[in-house]
Amino acid sequence: MVSRTATTAADIAAARLPAGTIALWWLGQASFVLRGPTSTFFIDPFLSATKERLVPPPFRAEESPPVDYVLCTHEHGDHLDLPVLKVLAQRSPNAQFVVPRPIVDLLTKEGIAAERIQGVQPGEEIVAGATRLFPTPAMHGLNCPPAIYDFGFELSDGLYRYLGYVIELEGVRIYHPGDTLVFDGLIERLRPFDIDIALLPINGRSYFREQQKLVGNMDEREAADLAAAAGVKLLVPTHYDMFAANLGRPGLLVEYVRSTHPELSCHLPSHGRRFTFMKGDA
Amino acid sequence: MVSRTATTAADIAAARLPAGTIALWWLGQASFVLRGPTSTFFIDPFLSATKERLVPPPFRAEESPPVDYVLCTHEHGDHLDLPVLKVLAQRSPNAQFVVPRPIVDLLTKEGIAAERIQGVQPGEEIVAGATRLFPTPAMHGLNCPPAIYDFGFELSDGLYRYLGYVIELEGVRIYHPGDTLVFDGLIERLRPFDIDIALLPINGRSYFREQQKLVGNMDEREAADLAAAAGVKLLVPTHYDMFAANLGRPGLLVEYVRSTHPELSCHLPSHGRRFTFMKGDA
Amino acid sequence: MVSRTATTAADIAAARLPAGTIALWWLGQASFVLRGPTSTFFIDPFLSATKERLVPPPFRAEESPPVDYVLCTHEHGDHLDLPVLKVLAQRSPNAQFVVPRPIVDLLTKEGIAAERIQGVQPGEEIVAGATRLFPTPAMHGLNCPPAIYDFGFELSDGLYRYLGYVIELEGVRIYHPGDTLVFDGLIERLRPFDIDIALLPINGRSYFREQQKLVGNMDEREAADLAAAAGVKLLVPTHYDMFAANLGRPGLLVEYVRSTHPELSCHLPSHGRRFTFMKGDA
Repeated sequence: MVSRTATTAADIAAARLPAGTIALWWLGQASFVLRGPTSTFFIDPFLSATKERLVPPPFRAEESPPVDYVLCTHEHGDHLDLPVLKVLAQRSPNAQFVVPRPIVDLLTKEGIAAERIQGVQPGEEIVAGATRLFPTPAMHGLNCPPAIYDFGFELSDGLYRYLGYVIELEGVRIYHPGDTLVFDGLIERLRPFDIDIALLPINGRSYFREQQKLVGNMDEREAADLAAAAGVKLLVPTHYDMFAANLGRPGLLVEYVRSTHPELSCHLPSHGRRFTFMKGDA
Repeated sequence: MVSRTATTAADIAAARLPAGTIALWWLGQASFVLRGPTSTFFIDPFLSATKERLVPPPFRAEESPPVDYVLCTHEHGDHLDLPVLKVLAQRSPNAQFVVPRPIVDLLTKEGIAAERIQGVQPGEEIVAGATRLFPTPAMHGLNCPPAIYDFGFELSDGLYRYLGYVIELEGVRIYHPGDTLVFDGLIERLRPFDIDIALLPINGRSYFREQQKLVGNMDEREAADLAAAAGVKLLVPTHYDMFAANLGRPGLLVEYVRSTHPELSCHLPSHGRRFTFMKGDA
Repeated sequence: MVSRTATTAADIAAARLPAGTIALWWLGQASFVLRGPTSTFFIDPFLSATKERLVPPPFRAEESPPVDYVLCTHEHGDHLDLPVLKVLAQRSPNAQFVVPRPIVDLLTKEGIAAERIQGVQPGEEIVAGATRLFPTPAMHGLNCPPAIYDFGFELSDGLYRYLGYVIELEGVRIYHPGDTLVFDGLIERLRPFDIDIALLPINGRSYFREQQKLVGNMDEREAADLAAAAGVKLLVPTHYDMFAANLGRPGLLVEYVRSTHPELSCHLPSHGRRFTFMKGDA
């Protein structure tokens, strides 16, 4: 049997996609590879084989397929995996990095050249090859307890420290929110994008996990309600699979969507397996 | 078939309990009748037949069995059902009322005599016949959005506006938290009571329910974690059954308890049915 | 901390129950201790510390409290734990054993005196002190595959080989079905007993478990539907906790009961913890 590891990396590198089609591979937690016909994006690539992982990375950074753009949403280690970013920068010398402006220096300290890094803020549209990126705010926190959920202005001279991205590729709109609660104004921001695919965390938050230093997220019902309220077509739950102390419940998401938002499709990819979406799918 | 209505009220009135034994009847939502051999308590009696109810009250206030003490945790209508309190005061002319001190006047305005009402605060031990009551803080909110969870000090001249109660009856310790999140210091307050039975809300909170003016509670995992951390023996989930927009998930509670806190027993009473507990049960 | 082992055995021995009250301790799987004010019953006592167990026995046979009657439903090792029965017979020299008539010789071969063993069949009412026992049929199988569910007549010269029991103690009626599917006539047999507590297996059956030699049972929805159809008041799920390959899902039971049979109460005891029931409870 060829190992899943070899399979996923090779599959990403080899995929040939027709115009109007994108492909996604879930690497676990909030980590995705997104490909169009001419470019490859990594989003929050978390590939370090830490001992707390319940699921091994589908491939090691040293085996990574070529990448054009690496997007990171915030500085937590499962989203900004610095040793991995360093290796990716070396293996793909033309890759560009997009991160929240307040954390650009974390990458330069790893030896990634400043000109390869774009520090961004909500409201700025980024052009990445044939792709457009729209950074969105995320309401999160760096540490807890105490659990304080905000945009990180105090830590960052008034700048947003936690981001999500809406990515437009081949006419398909994908929303990766980073880590976030649902907050006032988020639905209104998302609706105009007419989002096709939302990759939403479902692990939730609780007092007891906050006491264990686990900053929370929306839960599965909030994720479904958000997707429905924003007019999303396909909901892919994330951030529920990687750490024993911070699991989510995808079965409950599916149960809730089917009973409450039947217009919404759900896809639950297996780790490292490709799924494709053509404009018009749902 | 005798109606459940007639059955429950008659059953409460008729129950003969041996020493060391208490009986409980769940009336739906957070509403309970608690009896010992010599006294009867109502906790948050919600008996108005409002049209939003999914479950009718097991009996009407006008059919109520005699009551000695009526405890209310806070002023929301599903906990402080004023028309019902007024009728109970008339039907049981010796009944005493225990409520948070800042809302005593809500009862006097209904014509309940001030000398029958005890306005209480955490830290004050109340003697009610052979029973001891210990008011505990609750972290809740009067209105939302915006959702702000606190103790109500600002609305109440520095007093706690939302309460729970630990009730000691026949040596059995019962905790009714009112509506509350889990908050710093709650576990430490509860542990010394060596609580036998905790009647905990499990409906949770979410952004979308807060937008619908539904102030949240702990969810089923937080309730189980709280009960386990506080050393509770028997967990009875509440506040999950009454309003379509604010349901909880008792099956998930049981799944989580059995897999995560196997030392904890759970009881899921049917509405209006008696269940008893002897000191030493669990 | 005192070990659960020491606690449970001592608790059983020490319990003082008022008239009209019975107490139960779940020992895991289908194994229970039942006490009234004057007598102690073991039902399917499975106390051998086999390596496949997920949950250790709450006490060893050698530490067992005194027992008056030992009931076994059929000969599978998690129900008829012969080494344990032998020890119990020695420790409680007046204990009587009640088993299906076709398997009496399994006990005599262990050295338990024939006069201490009552081999029973459905339709025979057994008087056990102040208690009445009513054996009921169970539809099960000895081996699989192939999976053939029947009453065991072919193996037993036309006798029922698998039994359940309705036990009447202090006016409280308890149904322990042994291992069984739901079958024609079972509901009609149970209804006249006006059963208070049903201890029902919920592990279900599946082709794939039958291929692993696991003869099945009713599942959680069948257990709930059976309890409701038979007019049971309190449902206690069993047989879901002990073997990794044969687990049941108590959370789904509770979800189904609450949504489909709200008149039914559920209790989910922790292993080895006492729960009591007074006639009139539900």
